[in-house]
Amino acid sequence: MIWQTSANDPDSDVVLSSRIRLARNLKKYSFPSKLDTLEANNVIQAVNDVFSKTSSTSDRVFDIKNMDTVTPVDKIAMMERHVISPNFIRSSIPTGLIVSKDETLSIMINEEDHLRIQSIAGGRNLQLSFDNANKIDDLIEEKLEYAYNEKLGYLTTCLTNVGTGMRASYMVHVPALETTGQLQFILEAIGKFGLTVRGIYGEGTKAQGSLFQISNQITLGHSEKEIIDNLNSVTTQIVDQERLMRTKLLKEKKITIEDAVYRSYGVLSHARTLTSDEAMTLLSDIKLGCALGILEFEEKFHIYELMMLIQPANLQKAAGKELDGTSRDIERAAYIRQSLPKLKSL
Amino acid sequence: MIWQTSANDPDSDVVLSSRIRLARNLKKYSFPSKLDTLEANNVIQAVNDVFSKTSSTSDRVFDIKNMDTVTPVDKIAMMERHVISPNFIRSSIPTGLIVSKDETLSIMINEEDHLRIQSIAGGRNLQLSFDNANKIDDLIEEKLEYAYNEKLGYLTTCLTNVGTGMRASYMVHVPALETTGQLQFILEAIGKFGLTVRGIYGEGTKAQGSLFQISNQITLGHSEKEIIDNLNSVTTQIVDQERLMRTKLLKEKKITIEDAVYRSYGVLSHARTLTSDEAMTLLSDIKLGCALGILEFEEKFHIYELMMLIQPANLQKAAGKELDGTSRDIERAAYIRQSLPKLKSL
Repeated sequence: MIWQTSANDPDSDVVLSSRIRLARNLKKYSFPSKLDTLEANNVIQAVNDVFSKTSSTSDRVFDIKNMDTVTPVDKIAMMERHVISPNFIRSSIPTGLIVSKDETLSIMINEEDHLRIQSIAGGRNLQLSFDNANKIDDLIEEKLEYAYNEKLGYLTTCLTNVGTGMRASYMVHVPALETTGQLQFILEAIGKFGLTVRGIYGEGTKAQGSLFQISNQITLGHSEKEIIDNLNSVTTQIVDQERLMRTKLLKEKKITIEDAVYRSYGVLSHARTLTSDEAMTLLSDIKLGCALGILEFEEKFHIYELMMLIQPANLQKAAGKELDGTSRDIERAAYIRQSLPKLKSL
Repeated sequence: MIWQTSANDPDSDVVLSSRIRLARNLKKYSFPSKLDTLEANNVIQAVNDVFSKTSSTSDRVFDIKNMDTVTPVDKIAMMERHVISPNFIRSSIPTGLIVSKDETLSIMINEEDHLRIQSIAGGRNLQLSFDNANKIDDLIEEKLEYAYNEKLGYLTTCLTNVGTGMRASYMVHVPALETTGQLQFILEAIGKFGLTVRGIYGEGTKAQGSLFQISNQITLGHSEKEIIDNLNSVTTQIVDQERLMRTKLLKEKKITIEDAVYRSYGVLSHARTLTSDEAMTLLSDIKLGCALGILEFEEKFHIYELMMLIQPANLQKAAGKELDGTSRDIERAAYIRQSLPKLKSL
């Protein structure tokens, strides 16, 4: 890990990451829902071949994973780091995974579609994500023929993905909008722009630490550029609104905010047991504290990265063993104490 | 301040201070409830004369205070430091105060009785308190005649003080008994031994930070030695019970206790605003943490002293100005952050 934010990222106070996901299917094979084990393995082999033969043409090193040999904890850990989707873990047919060393690029094989190409970048870098996803897309298309229709575009298992097959999304941190109850209005308005808001781990997952994914709902009838432009324009408004609310809070409730932020740091840096929910809330507080200039750390510190690494499976990987709920909360507290840098001035 | 605990004080984990208070009246004057201003001033003058003339014979330096010139905030601050009683502040006739530099010895003039001699010692040092109070008592009795009856003993305004006129008390810290609900049973049992339990600032004040004053209820029909022996024997049982509960808690809920103690330290060392109640509770937690060996400070640190110095009036004295409630809570948080030593190992 992890997708470093570029040095010049003016929206890093609100936008944590950018993601492009392309849904693709191979013309030669039945769609995943109709695949038997043999055919599913053929799909995996076909895609793996593209990468095993072209690794030298790419500027990235790819790891071709045999998902059968990946442990359940490792699978969930990858899901927690957004490398794979929750759906992918639950697949009933053989699956494959190709992933770049830095985990910014991944191709899930036999998820809902034959291919789910995913490209993540830290901060507000959707264009970079898009360019990287496109390179992979082109790389595959050179060797394998996609299921494509001149009129409809890319054909996908689910109708909602037909067309560009693209989902573009931003992960935003909007504690001020959440606290002040403004978020609800934004969530209602966002649907009118063909966008949707989801929790930190996608559809059906709950929001933690004031983190939300904003993404396009519609893939058909709009070009990739139009989808990205639309998402960008709405996200800019959300960023502006969040900043407005932060300034308002800091002006009207300075001591309350400072107190909350410092207390959260105090608890995070001292607690001996922390649930995932509480840790996410406290980390969200100190992320806000940093953005508002209340907290300053002695070293560079990637809070969003820590938010992923303290999820249950990643914690167990770090500990090198399976842990029950109680032990995990103790491990989480220890991991956070170790990771949290000192404050510049108290 | 403040009553340092003696180096060898095996009960300092539970017993914070020892106090003897002697109620005395002068034969020559009406009791305070019947005094007019002129006579009240005569009583003050008579007692002051004893100390202005005998300061060289005593090994302590006494300050003879003109209470008319003491500001209301200073009065309350002294009350918060247990130098004077809440009653003393509310007196409707002129009052006087004689107090040793280290504030371990004080004589309130025209409280409920003409004289309230008070001697405090840190930790479990009731014999020292008693000896010191006796010295002052003898010093005064050499010059002034007390209201005394062969059969009844010292005569006092309130019948509950007739006899020895002595109240002996220990301030105990019993968080484990409080948390486990055992304290209630002890409070009920204690009355049978002629003892009573009060909050941190005496009768009618609430308990804060798991601090309680245990003292004798009865002054008549028992010698000073009997009163002290009885208080000692019950206190030893309370100390034992508190330790038993602490050990039990630490055994059965180790992580919960450690977590609570460290969180309290984390909040105390980072909060930007703290009410008196919350600060007392958190300081009580870290006092328990020290007693259990969970926390260790880089420097010597007198928690009980800090508990008094963060009370409203003492805080205002430290700040050098009057403060409203909100400003006081901010000042209190800052004062605690400054006073709290670093932990030895995190």
